[in-house]
Amino acid sequence: MWFIMQGKMHDIKKYVVIVAGGSGTRMGSAVPKQFLLLHGKPVLYYSIAAFLDAFSDINIVLVLPQDQEHYMASLLELFPGSTNITVVNGGETRYHSVQNGLKKIEGEAIVFIHDGVRPMVSKQLIYACYEQALEKGSAIPAIPVTDSIRIVRQSGSDPVSREELRIIQTPQTFLSGIILPAFAQEYSTLFTDEATVAEAYGKEVYLVAGERSNLKVTTPEDMILAEALLNARFKNE
Amino acid sequence: MWFIMQGKMHDIKKYVVIVAGGSGTRMGSAVPKQFLLLHGKPVLYYSIAAFLDAFSDINIVLVLPQDQEHYMASLLELFPGSTNITVVNGGETRYHSVQNGLKKIEGEAIVFIHDGVRPMVSKQLIYACYEQALEKGSAIPAIPVTDSIRIVRQSGSDPVSREELRIIQTPQTFLSGIILPAFAQEYSTLFTDEATVAEAYGKEVYLVAGERSNLKVTTPEDMILAEALLNARFKNE
Repeated sequence: MWFIMQGKMHDIKKYVVIVAGGSGTRMGSAVPKQFLLLHGKPVLYYSIAAFLDAFSDINIVLVLPQDQEHYMASLLELFPGSTNITVVNGGETRYHSVQNGLKKIEGEAIVFIHDGVRPMVSKQLIYACYEQALEKGSAIPAIPVTDSIRIVRQSGSDPVSREELRIIQTPQTFLSGIILPAFAQEYSTLFTDEATVAEAYGKEVYLVAGERSNLKVTTPEDMILAEALLNARFKNE
Repeated sequence: MWFIMQGKMHDIKKYVVIVAGGSGTRMGSAVPKQFLLLHGKPVLYYSIAAFLDAFSDINIVLVLPQDQEHYMASLLELFPGSTNITVVNGGETRYHSVQNGLKKIEGEAIVFIHDGVRPMVSKQLIYACYEQALEKGSAIPAIPVTDSIRIVRQSGSDPVSREELRIIQTPQTFLSGIILPAFAQEYSTLFTDEATVAEAYGKEVYLVAGERSNLKVTTPEDMILAEALLNARFKNE
């Protein structure tokens, strides 16, 4: 795969829209969760570094609530010489935040849309998404469900077969020719992620194997887990 | 709640059937996952200790594959003086394993059925399950789904609203008068957990709030996570 990619890699521009909209509410913290420290560096650092590590020429569009801009200076200091990081303001919903980020995209490109609070995304997953989006137009990372699942009804609950269910992650990855016009649609509350936006625009989306370690850091326990996974990763390097 | 429980606690016998059926396959390990070490003690140690810590008079029925019995001697040494631990052999499926364990139950009781590889279960969750099962007949721990979910179709996939979905955990907890006759039914492949067995017997089951930290240790990464959560727990004690 690497060999094939070497050839294709410079044919098309690459963008990642990193959406860092969260507050610290669920963390019980005054610092927004994407700026909490893992090994002394903000969660968001790792999310950005993963994409720069995969593609040194990638354009990074960071979508950030306006009131969090004062955190940026020290974050950018961690990427000296990186001129390809742009910061834009977040919107009312995730849809509007991504929409703001997508305005920075020019020309034909592969567009990754990534949660700022998924710091553990691997280079391998980024490449797999790139490859598939180039070939099929989209790549939505998904992992199997290992727990039993039930669906809650108005009264009671019913079991659901987990075999057919998938947990969806990011980076949700698209050809710009698909995702840009999809985000020109009028907003709908059915838009829960980028895949649903692309589908509403009439495009089928294609799943790709995600990674269990690519966790979304939402609670204080997730911080403990992310820190432990980082420790294990550093130990193996 | 504690005050109410103090009164009820000795009214009814308590059993926990701990199902430890796993091999080391998904761990890539020769040692079955329930005997891998966390902080120097087997995963199974913590699952047992949690219930003994919640109720010192609880009867523990450990369901174990026959070829893993040689691990037991050293495990039991970690519970000196505990005369209330019985070991029985596992069966062909989880259903048959639980069925074997339930044969040890005598008289009216609250019956917890717990995954051997959920070492992080808390005393609080055990008490909550006990209380609710006493009142309503069952308590099935469930937590909200925080990720986006899709359902895979024969061709393609569709989004599923996660709001109504719940991740199911153990201990699934029942009055013996419900779960014993339910497990006298003929086996069906639809029996994916104890809740589905009780439902097939015509009983409605009742969910109770589970805990995100009550994770099922299935992969090497889960071991890292469990170890990190244990570290944090020890630090707070």
